[in-house]
Amino acid sequence: MQTKILLNDSQIPKRWYNVIPDMPGQMAPVIHPQTGKPAAPEDLAPIFPMELIEQEVSRERWIDIPEEVLKAYQLWRPSPLYRAHRLEAALQTPAKIYYKYEGVSPAGSHKPNTAIPQAWYNKQAGIRRLATETGAGQWGSSMALAAGFFGLDVTVYMVRVSCEQKPYRKSLMEVWGAKVIPSPSPQTVVGRKILEQTPDTPGSLGIAISEAVEDAASHSDTNYALGSVLNHVCLHQSVIGLEAMEQLRLVGDYPDVVLGACGGGSNFAGIAFPFVRDKVNGKQVRLVGVEPASCPTLTKGVYAFDYGDTAKLTPITKMYTLGHDFVPPGIHAGGLRYHGQSALVSQLYHEGVIEALAYPQNTCFEAALLFARSEGIVPAPESSHAIRGAVDEAIKSREEGRERTILFCLSGHGHFDMSAYDAYLAGQLEDYEYPEENIRASLANLPRVEL
Amino acid sequence: MQTKILLNDSQIPKRWYNVIPDMPGQMAPVIHPQTGKPAAPEDLAPIFPMELIEQEVSRERWIDIPEEVLKAYQLWRPSPLYRAHRLEAALQTPAKIYYKYEGVSPAGSHKPNTAIPQAWYNKQAGIRRLATETGAGQWGSSMALAAGFFGLDVTVYMVRVSCEQKPYRKSLMEVWGAKVIPSPSPQTVVGRKILEQTPDTPGSLGIAISEAVEDAASHSDTNYALGSVLNHVCLHQSVIGLEAMEQLRLVGDYPDVVLGACGGGSNFAGIAFPFVRDKVNGKQVRLVGVEPASCPTLTKGVYAFDYGDTAKLTPITKMYTLGHDFVPPGIHAGGLRYHGQSALVSQLYHEGVIEALAYPQNTCFEAALLFARSEGIVPAPESSHAIRGAVDEAIKSREEGRERTILFCLSGHGHFDMSAYDAYLAGQLEDYEYPEENIRASLANLPRVEL
Repeated sequence: MQTKILLNDSQIPKRWYNVIPDMPGQMAPVIHPQTGKPAAPEDLAPIFPMELIEQEVSRERWIDIPEEVLKAYQLWRPSPLYRAHRLEAALQTPAKIYYKYEGVSPAGSHKPNTAIPQAWYNKQAGIRRLATETGAGQWGSSMALAAGFFGLDVTVYMVRVSCEQKPYRKSLMEVWGAKVIPSPSPQTVVGRKILEQTPDTPGSLGIAISEAVEDAASHSDTNYALGSVLNHVCLHQSVIGLEAMEQLRLVGDYPDVVLGACGGGSNFAGIAFPFVRDKVNGKQVRLVGVEPASCPTLTKGVYAFDYGDTAKLTPITKMYTLGHDFVPPGIHAGGLRYHGQSALVSQLYHEGVIEALAYPQNTCFEAALLFARSEGIVPAPESSHAIRGAVDEAIKSREEGRERTILFCLSGHGHFDMSAYDAYLAGQLEDYEYPEENIRASLANLPRVEL
Repeated sequence: MQTKILLNDSQIPKRWYNVIPDMPGQMAPVIHPQTGKPAAPEDLAPIFPMELIEQEVSRERWIDIPEEVLKAYQLWRPSPLYRAHRLEAALQTPAKIYYKYEGVSPAGSHKPNTAIPQAWYNKQAGIRRLATETGAGQWGSSMALAAGFFGLDVTVYMVRVSCEQKPYRKSLMEVWGAKVIPSPSPQTVVGRKILEQTPDTPGSLGIAISEAVEDAASHSDTNYALGSVLNHVCLHQSVIGLEAMEQLRLVGDYPDVVLGACGGGSNFAGIAFPFVRDKVNGKQVRLVGVEPASCPTLTKGVYAFDYGDTAKLTPITKMYTLGHDFVPPGIHAGGLRYHGQSALVSQLYHEGVIEALAYPQNTCFEAALLFARSEGIVPAPESSHAIRGAVDEAIKSREEGRERTILFCLSGHGHFDMSAYDAYLAGQLEDYEYPEENIRASLANLPRVEL
């Protein structure tokens, strides 16, 4: 009985997979936030190095991973693929459940898959410092780790509510040498303005992004780094799905359904995009993004042009969005508290290639506890969304008396999220209602784009 | 360049290694705490299942690992062996540094290696509940995990100072279904007595052991489980060293020196004992246990008969000890705050087969930070002692201009110890002086044993 399907150092993929050439339909242009006209790659140069900008717009299917990035990946990659025998037994399901475990990275999630190359390309471009934001702290700690590896300084704007819920995420970033600032902060024009209007705001990813972008744009030695949403981030995360495909091949299996938690979209993209290629070539495989019911971007948002941040500093992209000034309730899955969605995931959803599900947080924690008590690993609140989806597929399988093969991405561990488990075990976790009124209000503020 | 040396599920050792047949000298008898005469195996039956008692006194070199234990081990074993290329580069050393990483277990340390078989044998013996103690929380969480796997209840007496320093360790145990009680507690006779005499005591492993033993002895459906010190615990931990030997063999290497953190002794035993066999057969290999300077059992204790706990409930064994009523200062490496030492490690030290080193905590955290910033993984404070030892070996190597091969056990991650890192980074970590007077006082209370 095999539990772990392992690959060795030399089996790390040598190339990232870019889904764009395999997507049905044309990509919408990216719009410059000031001019309202399609943006050129050079417009991004003040905050990104050229190598990443090229990846952002590349139409190449395969992009080589630099040698130095592969070396750093070796600290934890290839990540293990598990067959969840004990979870299957607990669910009495005929389904086969596999999970790709990304919590083995030093930062405890999939985020270093892109933090490492982002730090590397910035270092190559002569940048001295990076500014970035973080929700739950998974991205900020990954960027702290990666920047430290390549000798870069890093300033992390951390969403205030997460700072309070997860103080040790801040400590972790500091251990790796980062400077952490609760957002909104008095350090930026944007932050000062928001603090003045709403001094008690819990913060949001949208606000923290605005602060980090402002910081990067106003310092010539500093670039900005984003942990999700963008095309090059989804590209870097493709190592997850590429490895999982190879691992399943080794045991002669192929998934009927692939699930990933869906916030900005990069974790879901990482596990699912390599399967998009098979799917558009006729293979039967369902690809399901799972999002929080309190921030239901795909399932309740609109497909429209919108800003990536609250202060309208970022380019305008066509995506599923709840409106750039929507501030989601303070759920514990801080990494999923984002108003928008990756343009790539959005378009694939729009084209019907992928599906989406939304769950409130209590039902996700229930699945996480079942998982922890059967498989051992205590999942991150973000990852619990994928678990919930996978568990429901397994239950369906049992009810239908039909075997199926389920693959999901366990994007990270919950070692820095124990206060969320305390709240769940104490019955104090709130299932926020679908914030319909707030969403309607924020959707009224979408930018008008004429093409 | 290979970073990780991996084994697959089927390469988990099928047998544990028992060092006793390979030890020079005779083992001293174990003394019954009430009669003062050598104890018989049956004397342990009220608190341990017979299979573990037989392992405790076995003279067999190899003991089969049960199938169900191997299956549970597969959730994280074999653990990876890392070549620390980045740490070597940071130290500019000609030494080759390898570390065996036990933090990949769901509980984040080596402790489940023995928690799993202990739970299994108790379940087989018809036991319904386990009582145990925990210092830093590593053992308690491992026992919570293992007990849950086999459907046993578990009550964990957690040293009070650790409860305060590491609240999320408690949450972790509760996620896996354990009941956690700060020790000393009003739940036991022993606890009530100590609380009356010293209401402000930070607690100690010695006290918590007394409470758990009392709990087990006074409930017929309950057994006791110990996370270190005992022979059967050292036996179970041998999987660490056995795997590491095989992993080094795969890359054609063999260590000049093997290091492990040394509290009760089981982690050090786990990495080092399989090499004892080579050493007594003439192989050149140094085996070094690293302990905290504030609880210097091997380096400053005496080799004498003593109780394993504060309340004199446990058998009396011959070991290095600081006296059973010595309460160590509240250092962050809570797992190393134990007055005594495994009888096996003690005798091997006494016979000159192994060496010992002691370090104050700041220098250990300095090494831990260097490690975190080069290798990525944030180490547990306990593990930082082994890192300090390994780093000093590597520095010596550089100073002497001589290559050497260093193997150490990274016993766990520090995700639940971030407050210790906060204190270190803020310069607020105390280097307690060698508590000479306290030790002298407690050594005056050793039991008199006449054989």
